[in-house]
Amino acid sequence: MGEKKEIRIGLIGRGLMGKMHANAYSRIGNFFPDLEYRPVLQTVCSRNEEKVKEFAETWGFNSYETDWKKVVERDDIDAIDICTPNNMHAEIAIAAAEAGKIILCEKPLSSDFEEAKKMVEVVDKSGVPNTVWYNYRRVPAVTLAKQIVDSGKLGKIFHYRANFLQDWTISPELPQGGDALWRLDVDAAGSGVTGDLLAHCIDTAIWINGGIKDVSAVTETFVKERVHQDSGEVQKVGIDDASIFHCHFSNGSLGLFEATRYARGHKALYTFEINGEHASIRWDLHDMHRLEYFDHSDESVVRGWRSIHVSDGDQPYMDRWWIPGTNIGYEHSFIHQAADFFKSLEEGEEAAGPTFKDALETEKVCNAVLKSAKSRSWEDVK
Amino acid sequence: MGEKKEIRIGLIGRGLMGKMHANAYSRIGNFFPDLEYRPVLQTVCSRNEEKVKEFAETWGFNSYETDWKKVVERDDIDAIDICTPNNMHAEIAIAAAEAGKIILCEKPLSSDFEEAKKMVEVVDKSGVPNTVWYNYRRVPAVTLAKQIVDSGKLGKIFHYRANFLQDWTISPELPQGGDALWRLDVDAAGSGVTGDLLAHCIDTAIWINGGIKDVSAVTETFVKERVHQDSGEVQKVGIDDASIFHCHFSNGSLGLFEATRYARGHKALYTFEINGEHASIRWDLHDMHRLEYFDHSDESVVRGWRSIHVSDGDQPYMDRWWIPGTNIGYEHSFIHQAADFFKSLEEGEEAAGPTFKDALETEKVCNAVLKSAKSRSWEDVK
Amino acid sequence: MGEKKEIRIGLIGRGLMGKMHANAYSRIGNFFPDLEYRPVLQTVCSRNEEKVKEFAETWGFNSYETDWKKVVERDDIDAIDICTPNNMHAEIAIAAAEAGKIILCEKPLSSDFEEAKKMVEVVDKSGVPNTVWYNYRRVPAVTLAKQIVDSGKLGKIFHYRANFLQDWTISPELPQGGDALWRLDVDAAGSGVTGDLLAHCIDTAIWINGGIKDVSAVTETFVKERVHQDSGEVQKVGIDDASIFHCHFSNGSLGLFEATRYARGHKALYTFEINGEHASIRWDLHDMHRLEYFDHSDESVVRGWRSIHVSDGDQPYMDRWWIPGTNIGYEHSFIHQAADFFKSLEEGEEAAGPTFKDALETEKVCNAVLKSAKSRSWEDVK
Amino acid sequence: MGEKKEIRIGLIGRGLMGKMHANAYSRIGNFFPDLEYRPVLQTVCSRNEEKVKEFAETWGFNSYETDWKKVVERDDIDAIDICTPNNMHAEIAIAAAEAGKIILCEKPLSSDFEEAKKMVEVVDKSGVPNTVWYNYRRVPAVTLAKQIVDSGKLGKIFHYRANFLQDWTISPELPQGGDALWRLDVDAAGSGVTGDLLAHCIDTAIWINGGIKDVSAVTETFVKERVHQDSGEVQKVGIDDASIFHCHFSNGSLGLFEATRYARGHKALYTFEINGEHASIRWDLHDMHRLEYFDHSDESVVRGWRSIHVSDGDQPYMDRWWIPGTNIGYEHSFIHQAADFFKSLEEGEEAAGPTFKDALETEKVCNAVLKSAKSRSWEDVK
Repeated sequence: MGEKKEIRIGLIGRGLMGKMHANAYSRIGNFFPDLEYRPVLQTVCSRNEEKVKEFAETWGFNSYETDWKKVVERDDIDAIDICTPNNMHAEIAIAAAEAGKIILCEKPLSSDFEEAKKMVEVVDKSGVPNTVWYNYRRVPAVTLAKQIVDSGKLGKIFHYRANFLQDWTISPELPQGGDALWRLDVDAAGSGVTGDLLAHCIDTAIWINGGIKDVSAVTETFVKERVHQDSGEVQKVGIDDASIFHCHFSNGSLGLFEATRYARGHKALYTFEINGEHASIRWDLHDMHRLEYFDHSDESVVRGWRSIHVSDGDQPYMDRWWIPGTNIGYEHSFIHQAADFFKSLEEGEEAAGPTFKDALETEKVCNAVLKSAKSRSWEDVK
Repeated sequence: MGEKKEIRIGLIGRGLMGKMHANAYSRIGNFFPDLEYRPVLQTVCSRNEEKVKEFAETWGFNSYETDWKKVVERDDIDAIDICTPNNMHAEIAIAAAEAGKIILCEKPLSSDFEEAKKMVEVVDKSGVPNTVWYNYRRVPAVTLAKQIVDSGKLGKIFHYRANFLQDWTISPELPQGGDALWRLDVDAAGSGVTGDLLAHCIDTAIWINGGIKDVSAVTETFVKERVHQDSGEVQKVGIDDASIFHCHFSNGSLGLFEATRYARGHKALYTFEINGEHASIRWDLHDMHRLEYFDHSDESVVRGWRSIHVSDGDQPYMDRWWIPGTNIGYEHSFIHQAADFFKSLEEGEEAAGPTFKDALETEKVCNAVLKSAKSRSWEDVK
Repeated sequence: MGEKKEIRIGLIGRGLMGKMHANAYSRIGNFFPDLEYRPVLQTVCSRNEEKVKEFAETWGFNSYETDWKKVVERDDIDAIDICTPNNMHAEIAIAAAEAGKIILCEKPLSSDFEEAKKMVEVVDKSGVPNTVWYNYRRVPAVTLAKQIVDSGKLGKIFHYRANFLQDWTISPELPQGGDALWRLDVDAAGSGVTGDLLAHCIDTAIWINGGIKDVSAVTETFVKERVHQDSGEVQKVGIDDASIFHCHFSNGSLGLFEATRYARGHKALYTFEINGEHASIRWDLHDMHRLEYFDHSDESVVRGWRSIHVSDGDQPYMDRWWIPGTNIGYEHSFIHQAADFFKSLEEGEEAAGPTFKDALETEKVCNAVLKSAKSRSWEDVK
Repeated sequence: MGEKKEIRIGLIGRGLMGKMHANAYSRIGNFFPDLEYRPVLQTVCSRNEEKVKEFAETWGFNSYETDWKKVVERDDIDAIDICTPNNMHAEIAIAAAEAGKIILCEKPLSSDFEEAKKMVEVVDKSGVPNTVWYNYRRVPAVTLAKQIVDSGKLGKIFHYRANFLQDWTISPELPQGGDALWRLDVDAAGSGVTGDLLAHCIDTAIWINGGIKDVSAVTETFVKERVHQDSGEVQKVGIDDASIFHCHFSNGSLGLFEATRYARGHKALYTFEINGEHASIRWDLHDMHRLEYFDHSDESVVRGWRSIHVSDGDQPYMDRWWIPGTNIGYEHSFIHQAADFFKSLEEGEEAAGPTFKDALETEKVCNAVLKSAKSRSWEDVK
């Protein structure tokens, strides 16, 4: 590591997530001044020199690079943060691990399941602290949901259901590929909504409700051909536009999951609900501060779903922010994840999850989902 | 009274409320078979013979009349139900009382405050059972609100606020007066939204939160002239289109009330909210089965407004209906009021409220509101 | 048929649905006075003489019976309404058809798929008018949803999802079987939530979105043993407590369905959502008057889900009821179905659906669901 | 001004708003990199040296002070940001204006109306750019509301209603005064909820709906005595705990306002609704991203309140942030206000509002409200 207490970050990628992570690192000092470790924006890397230079200036990075390999090689870099398209995650992560760097990687682990397994193997062997940016765990209302379930308030769990609904790719005129639309290009992304949206639902589900045993899935590609943004050629669409599955959790509950980019009217409606013997919980990203909670032990005539505005100082993370009743945003979940990660370094414990190993569990489910959709049969998660 | 257990009804008026009350009487036997008294649809009265005949047939009345005085005189009538425009209430009620008939009168008591006082005096002196159809008291969620407040769960009350918002008279092309639009004609109605909508809010408020001491009000007539539906002549509009007031309740809480027919987007949004030291309640007619309840004694991290779907057998009136989670409608509040009224006759107690005397308390507030709007000063309720 | 214009009803069963249908027949005259046919409450049948007598009195039936076969044989009965447990539907319906009676049958068609097919065959051959009480089609907001989809406003459909969530059987102490709890007894009910709740979701889905081609399902029985209510013996539970499936519709859209009685906090949350190319719709039984509608052709900066309170005179069925902004209830969907059925008789058209033939399509899906849950593979609907 | 393009800030006060403004200045560079002016955190001032030093370190200020007069005197300060208790605003602002500093002042202008008038006079005369932090104008959904009204979509306005409900001072055990609770101390705050909460409602109202002509108000102090936090002595409570008024706007619409800290269940429920001839709008701080909009010109059967999640790039400010469907927070409204202010400097126009002059209009209404509550009569706003 660099000088005392500083973690010098090498950020690879300057897209939406590059910006998001740069923001997270910048906020740590203001809102988590008690942490021993402090991220330093040492370098940012992207192939387009003009743009990466501008990004570095806007965000105050000390330098910039255009070749990620240089970043990994630099001695003045302590941590590599991977924000590239999915198909580059594995190569970078493995190189970073071999160079002994701390690794923070965007989700999903990889565009390819076999590569994902190899990443975890190499990273684990290297012993470097590592995490994957499944940021929704750190939305205060979601963290509170986890705490409520862990407290035992729900009792035996019967059902877990989640969906992630978007509508931005409905137009067949939308191209695929290139810088902006790599998520629609199967070569860059590996899969469609399964890796992009469903993976979030699965990570949260495993975190809150435990492991998934087997899945039965169906996927669909509604728009079969799109023009490639760079080449202008009409190509077959290789990604899944929608992905649905039901499953058994290890705890005996039934799961129901759906992700799609064809649900007209939903910008980014990530919701989940958990039904237990004694209580239930539900959450919705569009009103992300609100956790709904039903407690059957309430007196019967005044029993109902409680609409909890998670913004008080005794609710997760909210002691760091403003006043009860006021909201924080999407970006704050990333700030919380970064803070938790640096805190875990300081405490010498296992890195704050999800680690690469945890994220592999999600990859396993995604892989089983895609396999089941092809085989038209149940697939075990393994 | 007529033969054993039967209450032979003489219904005067065949408009919306005439239909509503006929329906209420018809349902009693099916859903409250345990009551000793049973209403009989003996006669219905309206000046238009063709229409009243058709109404009598549709609803199964044994006869019809075109002169309300005949109804009051008939020996085979036990109860007079007044569903005429407001300006006829007093004369009919007084005649009915003098003839010893039970009286059920639509709200508000009268188009004129002085007449209302006289009605109550005569009716009280006559000793006949009497009630005024402030039906919202018998919406199960509203009844539950009353029970919760009476239980003391709210503690000291700080605030009561209510509004009744509609938007059906915004167009200046809408005529006033005549059969259908007498509510817009100050001669027939006495006032505009004050007597029509605000009166409902006030009745519920007094019932739940006790008496009102003084008021400061403002009213407005947005459309100054309308064509009269019958004559076709352009007339000055005499009613209040909007009526707003704040007040002190006897228990020290502050009240805030608003009624209007110029709130674009609201068909009949009657809502109220009560804030107490320990708990709060709110309700909304558009989702009338739902009572929202906040209890500060809930554990802090999972505290929130409870959304109670009032439809279980242990919630008011719902043991008479279907199954938990299913709804009843607007009409059922009238069925409940009728049932409670007949039950009270059977038990020989004071008639189930609101009685004429109770309704006069609402008239007093309405009168003070209209007076305050004119005087531009606080007015005591007396 | 009996005397001119009268349809003399023989109602078999006096449980929740017996009461519901008796109520529907009683309201027709008041709210649909224009219909030529008028139901007459001729007889009601149940094995318990004391109770059926009381029921007949409460509802004003002209007679009662304790043996359903007598009802079918009576010359003064024009229509048989079947409200028994599911395992008796087939025998009664077949006898009624053979006796030339009009048939109104509670859903699902039968506890047994083979019997259901035979019922349809016999009833079709007999030529008697027939209908199955899938009442949700006649909730005004649901009817409006159908009209919106039929208008083409949604364009190509991508997704249909529905669930029916209850929580009343979570306690293992709850017995099964007997008069009150036959829905938990596999012998009487045939299946658990699949036939009870999922069948409603499927009927609405087929009505609005067309046929289902194939399904992949999972079911679960959370409580494995219960005491029988009558015998007091501990028995194996044979029903499905939860039933989940995804499917392909003939129009290429993906379906996702779930029903359970183990979703703590939900009394009877039947919801559905349809996502089309241009617009989407969703509905929820707990707020049954509200239809949510998203129209992508709205100007982008003010585009959002519209919350439509379906209660105006130009919205389905609402011209029969009260005033805009006021609600009707669960029972009214049955009144509407009865009215539509009698109207269809009058017009000499095919009986207002769902007919037995329509209902068989739902049975086919239910059968495929139960089969798929066992085979753990996709099953075609046939 | 200091060196080219830099605005060197002297922040006075390190409470909630001090932190909020420091945050706003820190974000400008990242999210508004196109602005010519860039705030520099030059110094922060507070009487407690230990705490202000820590604050300066956490937020990266170049220096700190303990005497505000020094800040105003310093040549290396271009702008004074006033975040002190209300009773110090006037003196500081006047000194800053006289020293030719840009002024950014927390709301309300002053604890005293006469002082407020003098502040505006001096500041105006000095010609320094100035603004008051009525931040809610820059919540994207609120800005959109303003744009919709300005577009004429609502037509003639009939009603404006707003409330700001909190519940944090209900306990009589809560002390008043001192560093943390100066808002409860009439000497420091000037008034209670009128200046603290109602002022926000009034600023937004005037901005969107134009000037207020006259008011009729009532205020209440529910808890009459509190212990002073510093002295421990029991003191009379001088502030208003609740403040309610109705009013006439210059455009002929009726206004209804309420603020209280005694509405159990509401943390910071600031809501407003505007009803126009053709359309209506409402908003709620707890779900601050959502704007509800009703457009009567929508086709009648599918007409309803639209729930707009204001998060798309074509909606106010949202092109600066993340992706559609994701939220920003309370703090962002301050970032937007700062950005708009610096932008206005660059363009040489009048400073982005609300200016001191604009804020005085709000003070006038607050003053009339407090006066009316005492006089128990209508008061003109002047």
